[in-house]
Amino acid sequence: MGWFGKSDYQPRGKHCYVTGGTQGLGKALAESLVKQGAHVTAVARDVEKGKRVEAELRALAQPHQTINFISSDLTDAESSAASLQKSSEHFDGQAPDYYFLCAGFSRPKYMVDSSLEDFKSGFDGTYWVSAWTAQAAVKLMVKQRKIGKIVFVSSFLGYTTFAGYTNYSPGKYALRGLADSLRSEMLLHDISVHIFMPCGIQGPGLEAENKDKPAVTHKIEEGDTPIPPEESAKALETGLKKGYYQITDNIVADFARLRSNGGVPSNNFFADTFYLLVSSVGIPIWRMTADAAVRSGRKAVRAEYEAKGVYDNPAK
Amino acid sequence: MGWFGKSDYQPRGKHCYVTGGTQGLGKALAESLVKQGAHVTAVARDVEKGKRVEAELRALAQPHQTINFISSDLTDAESSAASLQKSSEHFDGQAPDYYFLCAGFSRPKYMVDSSLEDFKSGFDGTYWVSAWTAQAAVKLMVKQRKIGKIVFVSSFLGYTTFAGYTNYSPGKYALRGLADSLRSEMLLHDISVHIFMPCGIQGPGLEAENKDKPAVTHKIEEGDTPIPPEESAKALETGLKKGYYQITDNIVADFARLRSNGGVPSNNFFADTFYLLVSSVGIPIWRMTADAAVRSGRKAVRAEYEAKGVYDNPAK
Repeated sequence: MGWFGKSDYQPRGKHCYVTGGTQGLGKALAESLVKQGAHVTAVARDVEKGKRVEAELRALAQPHQTINFISSDLTDAESSAASLQKSSEHFDGQAPDYYFLCAGFSRPKYMVDSSLEDFKSGFDGTYWVSAWTAQAAVKLMVKQRKIGKIVFVSSFLGYTTFAGYTNYSPGKYALRGLADSLRSEMLLHDISVHIFMPCGIQGPGLEAENKDKPAVTHKIEEGDTPIPPEESAKALETGLKKGYYQITDNIVADFARLRSNGGVPSNNFFADTFYLLVSSVGIPIWRMTADAAVRSGRKAVRAEYEAKGVYDNPAK
Repeated sequence: MGWFGKSDYQPRGKHCYVTGGTQGLGKALAESLVKQGAHVTAVARDVEKGKRVEAELRALAQPHQTINFISSDLTDAESSAASLQKSSEHFDGQAPDYYFLCAGFSRPKYMVDSSLEDFKSGFDGTYWVSAWTAQAAVKLMVKQRKIGKIVFVSSFLGYTTFAGYTNYSPGKYALRGLADSLRSEMLLHDISVHIFMPCGIQGPGLEAENKDKPAVTHKIEEGDTPIPPEESAKALETGLKKGYYQITDNIVADFARLRSNGGVPSNNFFADTFYLLVSSVGIPIWRMTADAAVRSGRKAVRAEYEAKGVYDNPAK
């Protein structure tokens, strides 16, 4: 009953599909998964780096583990679907079990200074780089009646944000919207959805981000301490073992998690305090009711898919 | 000091740019603005409907008011910028003062049943349909040192979401991310940013949405009562008059507003209660500190823009 809240996270023997698997969080996660006995497909754009990481991961693996690198532009829909298809070829066409969608980048810039391309590519590199893979994965998994997990990687800046992040936070908020909707929808099938909201992670990603960061953005972040990717990956796996839906790597993100209206200016102090009190009890109850409504729709949806020939294997 | 929190909302004599201004909320808002003595440019795709609404709005206006319709595909960056440019031609090239970004649509569908195109166009029709105009507006306004307001229209489903909305809620959450970041960033200039989070609005938009809505989605929403567009527009303007940043048209959305983590499953009940208590005090304080950091950067940014020749008029 992993999809119900309790955790069944166990990478041993599972095929794990890790996007952005050649650096930072993705690489640290791929290494940890290999060490735990998982088969790993790492996906990223840079072929040279990919081949090097593939060799490093293979060196950590036992002979029976399948470790591969696939080069792909994940901001493209067809390329994302093709990579997933390709990764399944080593497993008799079976879809991977776990998806860790770590790919993405951040290039903070004021909107006034951003070209159309800056604004668009920043978004594509945070949202579509994961959303296309998620769609391809869901379609393939449902077709194969596969039980599995999809793990999105958003950011602390997907809870709250400030000057400099107009080409980044929209995509990270959007991933939260996608994960929130998909978590509910996948109660219809046996796919559990999680979302990781890390704070700053050390490495080449952060170095590139800091290069042209606006002064005001720097100033707001001056007290932040980025952590090593291995530590962040560990926090993510700990959250998965606990069966958490939203996973953080830092108590600051936990503070933002519950009150994630973006920390924006409030309206009326007294009315807002009342709303918060009521909603803190009412929203979890509403959510459980909505989840129950989805679960009660499982039978009908599955019968419809059966009739339409969506599945490529018989019901168990 | 309108951008500081107190409101200076006053449509009389202002040029208001209303996207999606030919039906539903956008049209109701355009009518209200015209009645208050504003100049209005309504932007939408359908030329025939646009010309009809243009005539209706002109019938409500005094002779000195400038009322125009522009046909445009707002999901396209260049087309969005061109429309804005065109709207300024009636005002000696001056950018509009107020932007009401009401364009958008909703076509709920399960992700498994969605084509790449369904998934992509749903997103473009919620996010880019407003984001491109916002970028064009910000660039033009800053260049002209224009004082003004940008009002995004997200949705209750930009706070929380469920099965059926994977092609809609990501865009509505993304608008919240964009508005949250832009609100902070525009403290550098004299542009105030607001976001409207309406519940269901009666009209052709909702009818189209309900046509193919999945059964589970329908069931979760069965208690909802959509309101007339005029009522929703009134709630939006009331919020603007009060100087609210996030504006709702329904107490249910107010309950979601403060606790807008998507109403997702919580982690540890006791720890989460503690986090919520701390964050309810700590996050507003953090946000005020971050706002102060942005404000303290105004001088430097403006001097830099001055030096780079960004402005096309001298500082007052």
